[in-house]
Amino acid sequence: MVKVNDRFETLPESYLFSETAKRAKAWQKNNPRKRLIRLGIGDVTLPLTEAAVQAMVQAAKELKYADTFRGYGPEQGYEFLREIISNEDYAARGVRISPDEIFISDGIKTDCGAILELFDRDNIIGFCDPVYPAYMDAAVISGYAGDVDRGIGQWSKLLYLPCRVEYGFIPAVPQTRADIVYLCFPNNPTGAAATREQLAEWVRWANTAGSVLLFDGAYEAFITDSKVPHSIYEIDGAEACAIEFRSFSKTAGFTGVRCGYTVIPEALKRNGANLHQMWRRRLSGRSNGVSYIVQRGAQAVYSAEGREQIRERIVYYHKNAEIISRGLKNIGLTVYGGENAPYVWVKTPHGQDSWTFFDVLLHECGILTTPGVGFGPSGEGYLRLTAFGNRNDAEEAIERMKNTI
Amino acid sequence: MVKVNDRFETLPESYLFSETAKRAKAWQKNNPRKRLIRLGIGDVTLPLTEAAVQAMVQAAKELKYADTFRGYGPEQGYEFLREIISNEDYAARGVRISPDEIFISDGIKTDCGAILELFDRDNIIGFCDPVYPAYMDAAVISGYAGDVDRGIGQWSKLLYLPCRVEYGFIPAVPQTRADIVYLCFPNNPTGAAATREQLAEWVRWANTAGSVLLFDGAYEAFITDSKVPHSIYEIDGAEACAIEFRSFSKTAGFTGVRCGYTVIPEALKRNGANLHQMWRRRLSGRSNGVSYIVQRGAQAVYSAEGREQIRERIVYYHKNAEIISRGLKNIGLTVYGGENAPYVWVKTPHGQDSWTFFDVLLHECGILTTPGVGFGPSGEGYLRLTAFGNRNDAEEAIERMKNTI
Repeated sequence: MVKVNDRFETLPESYLFSETAKRAKAWQKNNPRKRLIRLGIGDVTLPLTEAAVQAMVQAAKELKYADTFRGYGPEQGYEFLREIISNEDYAARGVRISPDEIFISDGIKTDCGAILELFDRDNIIGFCDPVYPAYMDAAVISGYAGDVDRGIGQWSKLLYLPCRVEYGFIPAVPQTRADIVYLCFPNNPTGAAATREQLAEWVRWANTAGSVLLFDGAYEAFITDSKVPHSIYEIDGAEACAIEFRSFSKTAGFTGVRCGYTVIPEALKRNGANLHQMWRRRLSGRSNGVSYIVQRGAQAVYSAEGREQIRERIVYYHKNAEIISRGLKNIGLTVYGGENAPYVWVKTPHGQDSWTFFDVLLHECGILTTPGVGFGPSGEGYLRLTAFGNRNDAEEAIERMKNTI
Repeated sequence: MVKVNDRFETLPESYLFSETAKRAKAWQKNNPRKRLIRLGIGDVTLPLTEAAVQAMVQAAKELKYADTFRGYGPEQGYEFLREIISNEDYAARGVRISPDEIFISDGIKTDCGAILELFDRDNIIGFCDPVYPAYMDAAVISGYAGDVDRGIGQWSKLLYLPCRVEYGFIPAVPQTRADIVYLCFPNNPTGAAATREQLAEWVRWANTAGSVLLFDGAYEAFITDSKVPHSIYEIDGAEACAIEFRSFSKTAGFTGVRCGYTVIPEALKRNGANLHQMWRRRLSGRSNGVSYIVQRGAQAVYSAEGREQIRERIVYYHKNAEIISRGLKNIGLTVYGGENAPYVWVKTPHGQDSWTFFDVLLHECGILTTPGVGFGPSGEGYLRLTAFGNRNDAEEAIERMKNTI
């Protein structure tokens, strides 16, 4: 008789965003004439850039003719894309990451979980609290998490690194053993950005402890502050301890197109094992790479037109974040994030818990947000609002709240 | 100090097709004026259908406008695609698989490995020998395989089911414990097809033993024999014991576009656990689904034009298989497969081992094949030739061999 993976039982029944979607759906059913304003899930709303669409149309057409048809691509991704990433996302910032150290993926959500296959389940994984729940799902399913305490929603074998308001939501390096640590800056959900000094402390710690940092840079394009590094590899020594995940989702609007990349430097070795070579070996037997059409779209993001079109989008979303932040402050709420990130992290009023304030905004204002506690116990008492909606929605959301809160 | 997954060390240094590619490259370097005929890796050569390309061009253009833009899609895949699969690949054959039981994937290679996350590592996995090496890679990395015996290339905890010529390369059901068994029919690499009765015996066995069949139907479109089922679910009881993997790679030429699907029936339960629900839960936290553009391309494969364009391709590849099979027989070689599958499985002459005959064909004829032993010990003494090349290559390969072998 086959035995199933019983760690699934310790997962929360639904992924956070499935639960918020369910509540939103119920509200809409009861309020069929009202319009829901979605500031919840971090999906983009502006359409794709002309440059990316043109490139994908062209690529699709190439596949129609025998002499330009392409079948299986390299599992690691096409060189044309890895090369431009190496130049534009790294060399242009003075960082040396070779095209060979870059692995094209279908997005961070896939690779940030799959990466755990490189490690032994005896390792202790550290997570920021609050945290993007996909990391946690992967750790639980893969057998790293131990037993769950459903009351507080924590697992016995994981190490939680509280991100406290008094430290600007940046976690301190662990005082106890942590072999692998997920970091995400600019942060989802708090919108906090780590400075060069803060990241340097993490890199020093990881190299001393022999640990590995899994650095999620999904929101890099939203950085405005020059003190904030765009890549963990801007920190000396990071190439010996960090894996970086990047995405075209939030910059180029690729949430439905699916493309990202994972960087594993050749210098990242542990116990004589070369993690770069291990990942390369894994991909060869477990993946056939990312759609050629999609990779051509991602390449076009780096063209002069592509860059300009993306810059406009980032400016637009930043402005939304500003409108939401300022509006909430004017209402009298306490607000964080939103400057180097597309997320605004707001303290619930009157000591309400996250789900209570989530329901208040849903039921009284018709606004969908995400409860902070859904990202971890330390997110209790906060909500996450995204700036990825359209301008009118950002403005109207504030208007609706003004009259209610 | 982080501990890496030391099971990687037990993997062969390179995936089979990386090794054959390396030898081909070396040969080409030494013979710069000769043209290599590629009958090795199972990549298609005919371009995409007009229908699929048109649909993808259209889909890419939709994403350019705010009112037709789509961001995150459903992790399980769009309903428009799941519905047409349910109707055309199942209902049309009298099989009831609901759209909800279908999960769109980026191809079988990804899902046939990831599916092992649903199970406990204590299970015994059975594999055909010879077998598609991607299953094995996943089992090893995921910790199911035990220790490797490098001499024979086998792992201590896996169960090998020899596919012998005297039984038409169809494995017998296990006489010892096997909790999960990978089956692929029409088979890669032998080209053998299992009849209804043979599959029914496997389904009976799995339901009695409480085991799960992982059924790879990648080559379904090549079935010509009416006795051969197109889906495992044509067998009564399979919905209670089997997961089926299907792909658009070999039918619609999607090897570089990347789309397939995985079927997990609601009725598939073990120890009170519902594998369908587990996979759905896993996807929600581990994936953001497949590119919208690609899913529209896959949908178009089912249109009247799409079907006709695909039929032409299958006919073309079948003809290649016939040319290769007949040619090899005329040369005096013993040949299997090629009738319900795009693979021809040929016995090496003069008792040569697989790699020796591989090298003979490469060095003396400039023909790239795949050594049978690369698919497992029982593949020793065979080569796999694919019919996915172009007509001229199939004909010229036979001519070259005639003059050499």
